Amino acid sequence: MSGNTLGLLFKVTTFGESHGPAIGAVVDGCPPGMHLSVEDIQPELDRRRPGTSRHVTQRQEKDQVEILSGVFEGITTGTPICLLIRNTDQRAKDYDNLSDTFRPGHADYTYWHKFGIRDPHGGGRSSARLTAPVVAAGAIAKKWLKEKFNTQIRGYLAQLADIAIPFDDWAHVSGNPFFAPNTTSMSALENKMDSLRKEGDSCGARIHVCASNLPVGLGSPLFDKLDADIAHAMMGINAVKGVEIGAGFASITQTGSVHGDELTPEGFASNHAGGILGGISTGQDITVAIAIKPTSSIRIPRRSIDKDGQAVMVTTQGRHDPCVGIRATPIAEAMLALVLMDHALRHRAQCADVHVTTPIIPARID
Amino acid sequence: MSGNTLGLLFKVTTFGESHGPAIGAVVDGCPPGMHLSVEDIQPELDRRRPGTSRHVTQRQEKDQVEILSGVFEGITTGTPICLLIRNTDQRAKDYDNLSDTFRPGHADYTYWHKFGIRDPHGGGRSSARLTAPVVAAGAIAKKWLKEKFNTQIRGYLAQLADIAIPFDDWAHVSGNPFFAPNTTSMSALENKMDSLRKEGDSCGARIHVCASNLPVGLGSPLFDKLDADIAHAMMGINAVKGVEIGAGFASITQTGSVHGDELTPEGFASNHAGGILGGISTGQDITVAIAIKPTSSIRIPRRSIDKDGQAVMVTTQGRHDPCVGIRATPIAEAMLALVLMDHALRHRAQCADVHVTTPIIPARID
Amino acid sequence: MSGNTLGLLFKVTTFGESHGPAIGAVVDGCPPGMHLSVEDIQPELDRRRPGTSRHVTQRQEKDQVEILSGVFEGITTGTPICLLIRNTDQRAKDYDNLSDTFRPGHADYTYWHKFGIRDPHGGGRSSARLTAPVVAAGAIAKKWLKEKFNTQIRGYLAQLADIAIPFDDWAHVSGNPFFAPNTTSMSALENKMDSLRKEGDSCGARIHVCASNLPVGLGSPLFDKLDADIAHAMMGINAVKGVEIGAGFASITQTGSVHGDELTPEGFASNHAGGILGGISTGQDITVAIAIKPTSSIRIPRRSIDKDGQAVMVTTQGRHDPCVGIRATPIAEAMLALVLMDHALRHRAQCADVHVTTPIIPARID
Amino acid sequence: MSGNTLGLLFKVTTFGESHGPAIGAVVDGCPPGMHLSVEDIQPELDRRRPGTSRHVTQRQEKDQVEILSGVFEGITTGTPICLLIRNTDQRAKDYDNLSDTFRPGHADYTYWHKFGIRDPHGGGRSSARLTAPVVAAGAIAKKWLKEKFNTQIRGYLAQLADIAIPFDDWAHVSGNPFFAPNTTSMSALENKMDSLRKEGDSCGARIHVCASNLPVGLGSPLFDKLDADIAHAMMGINAVKGVEIGAGFASITQTGSVHGDELTPEGFASNHAGGILGGISTGQDITVAIAIKPTSSIRIPRRSIDKDGQAVMVTTQGRHDPCVGIRATPIAEAMLALVLMDHALRHRAQCADVHVTTPIIPARID
Repeated sequence: MSGNTLGLLFKVTTFGESHGPAIGAVVDGCPPGMHLSVEDIQPELDRRRPGTSRHVTQRQEKDQVEILSGVFEGITTGTPICLLIRNTDQRAKDYDNLSDTFRPGHADYTYWHKFGIRDPHGGGRSSARLTAPVVAAGAIAKKWLKEKFNTQIRGYLAQLADIAIPFDDWAHVSGNPFFAPNTTSMSALENKMDSLRKEGDSCGARIHVCASNLPVGLGSPLFDKLDADIAHAMMGINAVKGVEIGAGFASITQTGSVHGDELTPEGFASNHAGGILGGISTGQDITVAIAIKPTSSIRIPRRSIDKDGQAVMVTTQGRHDPCVGIRATPIAEAMLALVLMDHALRHRAQCADVHVTTPIIPARID
Repeated sequence: MSGNTLGLLFKVTTFGESHGPAIGAVVDGCPPGMHLSVEDIQPELDRRRPGTSRHVTQRQEKDQVEILSGVFEGITTGTPICLLIRNTDQRAKDYDNLSDTFRPGHADYTYWHKFGIRDPHGGGRSSARLTAPVVAAGAIAKKWLKEKFNTQIRGYLAQLADIAIPFDDWAHVSGNPFFAPNTTSMSALENKMDSLRKEGDSCGARIHVCASNLPVGLGSPLFDKLDADIAHAMMGINAVKGVEIGAGFASITQTGSVHGDELTPEGFASNHAGGILGGISTGQDITVAIAIKPTSSIRIPRRSIDKDGQAVMVTTQGRHDPCVGIRATPIAEAMLALVLMDHALRHRAQCADVHVTTPIIPARID
Repeated sequence: MSGNTLGLLFKVTTFGESHGPAIGAVVDGCPPGMHLSVEDIQPELDRRRPGTSRHVTQRQEKDQVEILSGVFEGITTGTPICLLIRNTDQRAKDYDNLSDTFRPGHADYTYWHKFGIRDPHGGGRSSARLTAPVVAAGAIAKKWLKEKFNTQIRGYLAQLADIAIPFDDWAHVSGNPFFAPNTTSMSALENKMDSLRKEGDSCGARIHVCASNLPVGLGSPLFDKLDADIAHAMMGINAVKGVEIGAGFASITQTGSVHGDELTPEGFASNHAGGILGGISTGQDITVAIAIKPTSSIRIPRRSIDKDGQAVMVTTQGRHDPCVGIRATPIAEAMLALVLMDHALRHRAQCADVHVTTPIIPARID
Repeated sequence: MSGNTLGLLFKVTTFGESHGPAIGAVVDGCPPGMHLSVEDIQPELDRRRPGTSRHVTQRQEKDQVEILSGVFEGITTGTPICLLIRNTDQRAKDYDNLSDTFRPGHADYTYWHKFGIRDPHGGGRSSARLTAPVVAAGAIAKKWLKEKFNTQIRGYLAQLADIAIPFDDWAHVSGNPFFAPNTTSMSALENKMDSLRKEGDSCGARIHVCASNLPVGLGSPLFDKLDADIAHAMMGINAVKGVEIGAGFASITQTGSVHGDELTPEGFASNHAGGILGGISTGQDITVAIAIKPTSSIRIPRRSIDKDGQAVMVTTQGRHDPCVGIRATPIAEAMLALVLMDHALRHRAQCADVHVTTPIIPARID
């Protein structure tokens, strides 16, 4: 495909299929001298891991990561870091009856026509399982950004189906299986998921991701604007159908006198821009929202065709998430981290000698 | 910036500033043997050109394109095509009072801190004027896609501020200065624009773009998915704050049994996917929506700071579009064309030898 | 480093260190539908493998390759192919006394100053061991080129120290540990190597590589000329100090009336160009020569400095090749294969629709 | 071709044909804040310019460069710098008789088969005239490297045909039309050139290029080693058939005890490595040699074929350099500058935070 690498300087190349022997990533371009061990990466993988609540797929994968290279005596050397995750709970036979049909909403039809061959087991390469190496790589970027700029990258579930989930406090996010930022939405979310599971159907979700404490100046306009590269990364996550920066689609009905964030010596007066102007970070929070479509693997029978073009009915059994969005928060955080890290390196490559005396204003007036 | 090139194989590099001597693009990787002349490009530039109605900036730029290379006796040679557009109506002095302040909603603050220098005349590099070379390059991609696959790339204004603009017929789009797809919304749109102009304010817009007659198989997952690359291109257009593919954010509240497009021997039963599954084109229409923020250049005074960090009030005079979205349709079409063309070349590079006997189903049941 | 990927469309990313747990490569962009198994790759690794004669390092590495992804039921799927080689015979302690000194002719000093850290065991990332993943990846390219064009890529040792090795027949190359193309040079080569080993010194070598049966048209001038990309790949092999295409440095003393290869309907009359004109393949044999410097790891004491800048004497013990050039032939072949394959894909991306009626002339008049 | 861009961060994209309206380059990624004007670039172009002595082509081109973008009030802004050079002395009709034949040693045959079309006037895109934009871009890199590191990049003609040209002093290079580094070789060189011109034949040349005062640490192994990228750039110059770094092909007959440059606290004891170890600069002089083949355009009749594959005789009239190597020195310097600049930016992107207390030793013991 030759499209399996993300980033220009901090480059992540992933490999592997859902039911092959292993999946993984090669991270090239990591600055040398950073402490790095499995303990820095595993917690992020555990956040994304399946089988942790009744609301997600029951596939049991430990997602145990192994660092094969690029680290010497616990320190990054600046050489490629290979991260390997062995697949352990493959049940290929779950998919044998699907190998000749194209599941609606899946990549089966397109992979087949593009490549003339596909690995039908668990979606092969197109499986959401392939977000695990992204999360692993993202953990490295998160760590570096944290150590360098004190950048914090966090996300949460903002909506599930028609249930809006009000933001209360970041502290709540890790306390529930939904990455919800409050405690009051729990029963509604659980009921929704239980009912979907009973119906054999699925629903979509909205995730918000935010990066705080990022320096002003990241982004390479005109084409590699920071928001453009974020949109690229986010839309590349499985099942994502929409991306917003800052006010997003709501900016359509705003007037310029409302949308344009005023600057004062005490800070920006608002953040409709989502922390990016002209494709370059402002120093405010980078705010991103993504829309995740309902999982395509459902138990309700659907019309489709087989490889001969004949009509068939398809019902997906297997083990699936009724809402893939539930586990998407760590993935979106990882993607954001990868883009920001790449641009942090790109920025200092070109602009390391820039010094202006103009003061940098705070992210926000409070 | 080193981020001024779009595409891997069909590569477009733009250059120039709003008020410099010229702007332009170098298009590298165009297949040889295609008829190409100024007449193929100029009409697209004319669609984007300022000064064509009272609703857009009155800057008078002919946007006359010159082909400097890559074409011999009217045929592309496969070598880089340089497209040059001379700037003719610069009024640099309009901006002299702005050179020490940062206009809210503009790239002034970020360019200044990133580069330590900026060309304040008309926004310099960050000006929407720099979409002209993109439109010129897009015209080449459009032509090639049309000749190769009969692909048709079209867009329209779907919403202006709070005015939804129902789609009636493509034929209407060229008949009004808004790229609106009907005739009934005209007076509402004109009134809105007149009132904004009177108030010195601006508004946002929603643009829909669609590519029909595209083959199945374009896209390079996992990272360079077709939708990811489209999102990158679209979010890179000036003022864009959101991108949707297919059902977009509406997919959040859909169930899987509704969203997943069924396949039948007679065609796909719906197109919530927007013509892309697993990052690869399905052969259905590629449907994209973008949100464009309100123009930041408004006559209403706003708080800001100057280069010394002191509080100032900023009022933008100059000549500006009260809704930059009005002229965005040809730009979004061009960006879509560039991405599709690049992926058409990428696809045949890897998969030219793929042959499957499975029939390709029609884009849509009717 | 972010420089660990070779190729634009057929992309090879390597990872690993000499004495880490594993080395390997991710091959992205391989066309789908090709039969591929370990049996296609292992023989090439075995040709490069250490420990096969007394003239090379006695490190015992099986170099057993494992295919982790990208192949389904013995067929390439078009997704990334991860090739893993576990290190088995690490003797890290051989190098412990070297961790604070910089060996002359080695990358120790430069890695240390660039990265501020280095893995001293066996050279870490800079070890010639890292050519193994290249050879593995090259085997895939060789196979594809062979099946597609019947391309044959072969190399041989043309000179060892001051011993010129006349070309007799390709058949001899596999019959001796030197990759020498005759039988008559054997005793001179063996004596030379034995004497060097006794002295604890080393020598350089000259390798010739040749690709036959390549179509006319490969290469992307101006910068990515086929010869430019070959030079890049070859000079990137450990210890290579010079690259020639065709007549190479001998062309300096040729006249134009001698050098310029005449064309006749029966074929080219000579091949001083080495099969490349204007950066594009002519259809003749691609002929490349490389100069390999003497191994830097020698037992003769040499002056150097340590990390504090103090003078020290360095003697390399460990297990080393007295002439790294002896094992370089398969590496150079692999590098050539990778470049040609990448350009084969690039060519058809842009020029798949080109058809000229002009006959292609034979590679050579005989 | 999509191969017309050099560099990862400091990116140069060239365009244009020998006899089209203009040639030029877009330089993307230049750090902001550097003084830059036509006066910084024109002198380098003047060094390469044709028509300056009787020994080179008499085509009269002023090669007057125009800066179209990327510079504001004499300072680089960090945005793309477009450099335009209008062609003024085209004599297209000189080539009309060649449009149906393939000149031996030229790119005619390969361009024709690759692209199915070619601009025959003066070689079109494959003309050595296209080195002018490279020289212009290189002037920017030279200036930045000079200001940043005091790097000096210089070259000279080391051999013409069989005449070796001993190095005496850099001061001589600018004092003669050959870029010869002494005064004693003049009459031999002039006689050689006069005799070639009389015979209608041509000869090759050897150029040496050297970069002094470069910091230790530049280069991105494994694939983008500094020497690999230099080899790529050099072999991409028209007519180059060989590249050497440091001892080059002479290292074949050296022993390791001679070749490996010893380190002492007072400096390196020699520089056989040519300033690069493990693909990373050592801080010593980067020394490069290239072989340039004899010009293919000669007046002596040669066998060839036409587009129908029929045998023809070809004699090149037009205005040509009997030794294209004479004007190659500034081109090789420019190419070296471009590679070094790109790697200077790449290095600080990844390694800006590296600090070691180990002293950097001088380039050379004297």
